[in-house]
Amino acid sequence: MAEKKLVEAITSMSEDFAQWYTDVVKKAELIDYSNVKGCMVIKPAGYAIWENIQRELDRRFKETGVENVYMPMFIPESLLQKEKDHVEGFAPEVAWVTHGGLNPLQERMCVRPTSETLFCDFYKGDIHSYRDLPKVYNQWCSVVRWEKETRPFLRSREFLWQEGHTAHATEEEAVERTEQMLNVYADFCEEVLAIPVIKGRKTDKEKFAGAAATYTIEALMHDGKALQSGTSHNFSTGFAEAFGIQYTDNENKLQYVHQTSWGMSTRIIGAIIMVHGDDSGLVLPPMIAPTQITVIPIQQKKEGVLDKAYELKNMLAGKGFRVKVDDTDKSPGYKFSEQEMRGIPMRIEIGPKDIENGKCIICRRDTREKIEVSLDELAAKVEELMPQIQKDMFDRAKAHLEEHTYEAHNKEEFVDVFANKSGFVKAMWCGETACEEQIKEDMAVTSRCIPFEQSCLSDTCAYCGKKAQKMVYWGRAY
Amino acid sequence: MAEKKLVEAITSMSEDFAQWYTDVVKKAELIDYSNVKGCMVIKPAGYAIWENIQRELDRRFKETGVENVYMPMFIPESLLQKEKDHVEGFAPEVAWVTHGGLNPLQERMCVRPTSETLFCDFYKGDIHSYRDLPKVYNQWCSVVRWEKETRPFLRSREFLWQEGHTAHATEEEAVERTEQMLNVYADFCEEVLAIPVIKGRKTDKEKFAGAAATYTIEALMHDGKALQSGTSHNFSTGFAEAFGIQYTDNENKLQYVHQTSWGMSTRIIGAIIMVHGDDSGLVLPPMIAPTQITVIPIQQKKEGVLDKAYELKNMLAGKGFRVKVDDTDKSPGYKFSEQEMRGIPMRIEIGPKDIENGKCIICRRDTREKIEVSLDELAAKVEELMPQIQKDMFDRAKAHLEEHTYEAHNKEEFVDVFANKSGFVKAMWCGETACEEQIKEDMAVTSRCIPFEQSCLSDTCAYCGKKAQKMVYWGRAY
Repeated sequence: MAEKKLVEAITSMSEDFAQWYTDVVKKAELIDYSNVKGCMVIKPAGYAIWENIQRELDRRFKETGVENVYMPMFIPESLLQKEKDHVEGFAPEVAWVTHGGLNPLQERMCVRPTSETLFCDFYKGDIHSYRDLPKVYNQWCSVVRWEKETRPFLRSREFLWQEGHTAHATEEEAVERTEQMLNVYADFCEEVLAIPVIKGRKTDKEKFAGAAATYTIEALMHDGKALQSGTSHNFSTGFAEAFGIQYTDNENKLQYVHQTSWGMSTRIIGAIIMVHGDDSGLVLPPMIAPTQITVIPIQQKKEGVLDKAYELKNMLAGKGFRVKVDDTDKSPGYKFSEQEMRGIPMRIEIGPKDIENGKCIICRRDTREKIEVSLDELAAKVEELMPQIQKDMFDRAKAHLEEHTYEAHNKEEFVDVFANKSGFVKAMWCGETACEEQIKEDMAVTSRCIPFEQSCLSDTCAYCGKKAQKMVYWGRAY
Repeated sequence: MAEKKLVEAITSMSEDFAQWYTDVVKKAELIDYSNVKGCMVIKPAGYAIWENIQRELDRRFKETGVENVYMPMFIPESLLQKEKDHVEGFAPEVAWVTHGGLNPLQERMCVRPTSETLFCDFYKGDIHSYRDLPKVYNQWCSVVRWEKETRPFLRSREFLWQEGHTAHATEEEAVERTEQMLNVYADFCEEVLAIPVIKGRKTDKEKFAGAAATYTIEALMHDGKALQSGTSHNFSTGFAEAFGIQYTDNENKLQYVHQTSWGMSTRIIGAIIMVHGDDSGLVLPPMIAPTQITVIPIQQKKEGVLDKAYELKNMLAGKGFRVKVDDTDKSPGYKFSEQEMRGIPMRIEIGPKDIENGKCIICRRDTREKIEVSLDELAAKVEELMPQIQKDMFDRAKAHLEEHTYEAHNKEEFVDVFANKSGFVKAMWCGETACEEQIKEDMAVTSRCIPFEQSCLSDTCAYCGKKAQKMVYWGRAY
């Protein structure tokens, strides 16, 4: 490969954000396109991010009592059809298996687009008494949705996710679990991924097929578009009635269970890229970065340089940081741009002169600021800087979210934002689906959520002028 | 549920081993059957074992430089057909997807039965120069094989596994990796699962479809039947030639890459059950057991008993053990049999009298031995016993393997073992596939492996009398 800077190989964000995104996922070696149309290959640099997400989310789930299980990947057609709204939502976008080996199947099966029906079928046989409740199960798996337009991480025919499915004795407990898991997602996004989110409830039009209520966290990307980043659904007794999932309560009466489901997927990697990335490539928050520091030796063939680089690496690894030395035969400049493209939060440059002076250079990926540090103070400086980078990344994303959230008090203001700016619009809404559909048709704008934190901006719907019911976040979404 | 002992609900091993196995997987709550024919639901107790297997294997893989990735789950038919032997081996047992959403696909795709073809297709585009080698990739996923007869863990239409796929510059390096991964599997089985294995090479008849050589580890179940527990394949340049995977070497010449693949699956949970289980249920080796100790309070309603149980639990958890207290309202006897059925390596019984005397009872699951220990010495005793249980379980399995391995010097001895005993037969073999096929036809016995540790038992093939080539392990297999 020629030694030109990697950064020259990518489009700038301001020029073409979509092309910038595609360039970054490829050049940062997160994915590759495959010959299976609409499916991607997740390469080591991308999969390592997913492994860190899994580890951290799974730990948080288990702290709330979640147990992991594994359900079959196939759903017989008759099972998919048991809940009417659910099948209407998913049947048009599933992949159908019609043959097993050389023989046609008696009943065709789809590859799971989501597993509510499989969990219901299982719970029906597994739940008998109130002593069997609650069931708080989750699975990590891949799902398939036959999308026409696909984009890496954001929308692909197969993607990885976790899906939690719970069953409870009471509606109260189900509502509590739905909210609890939404909070787990929100805290994870803010604390670990440094992505601020808006928590709220979906409108009836936007809720999950078969749900009584869908809660969501919505994040704002660098280009002002929204990304639904995690959802948590309360099914009430809808699925239980369709599938006949009943338990005997402590007065020996038969009752339907109350159910929830909640999921987060590899889509969130798209959010990390589009919230934090810049024209030099990916920028990973330290807490999720598979490698946190690259030590880059300068004039590495000079005696003692590589040894010193490894000494620093081992010292920092001993402090619990994830560190690598780049000792390949590429030029330092190329190594710098590679480390930047891959979003590694910090690099340490160390050459013969530095060693002589007992110093080295730290370069922050997020600000690209260079800091000279004496080798004696290196560990302390890295320990101070790493959480600072994490915090600064969150603060910048939070400022961007606030700067790109607009209030609209009437139709003119509403239209103006989506014509001339980009971001979230907070506006009062009448609560009618017809109005929501009109907004979508007119401007390709959808309701993102009815935020839990409500405020009253006016008495009338900003779009249609009818009596206002709720304040809603609106946006163009991925 | 009635308070009768769980053990009464299962068939004894000696009466009907197959039924005992089925009873244990159900009563220990490892799996449930699903309405998707031939597929199982892996319940929390079963999945937690798989999570421990994953964690430990993944750590060992990464120590050898393995990186995790994720490939699509679908294989277009034309891709599956690229390597002739491979497609012949797998096409008869794959599930075919023919429709995406409402439309028929232009080309049907199968759900991966294994992913050699997908990795090859990816490597073809990703490998250019010797600098790109080696590639040492692995994925954790589920695969589908359309089996007619299925049994939980042992043979099901969908199962979970890991599959490693590597590409190397030289044949030497590929052979080395094939052997290295077989050793990782063997060490894992022996050190973590307490299952002794025979390492060797498969005959041409038994090797993987498309492989130049297949290495295997073979374990002996309690009933004397063999279980192939992990395999590692060397493909030489076979797949590379079929897919055109070439690199430029350091003299600028085009060369084919040398490839390997290796896998271990949820099948290994079947081995854990059938090697260590007994008439009271599952027996889990401490290193893989999700819960290692159950503290069972006696007369738990008496003041101080539950507090003491939790105090012991916290003390032992602080020492790094995985401990639970069973404070349900079941009787102690029922709790004992539940802990035994689930194979939890140790239980601690503590009641008002014990507390008065400053003592408790430890009961080992493997030997069912009861040991009175003073509370002061409990931690030290558990720290001594836990590795002892692990070691004793291995030693017993090893002794069973040795007692059930027979030498056959001629056809009479060969036939006698499989007619009147059960286990492995070590015997010299002529090396001809026709002879191997005859043995299978006559006695439903297959070659398990040509062990790396060879010895010469005679000059002639024990079965057909022709000149002997190698010593082979024979057995009836799952």
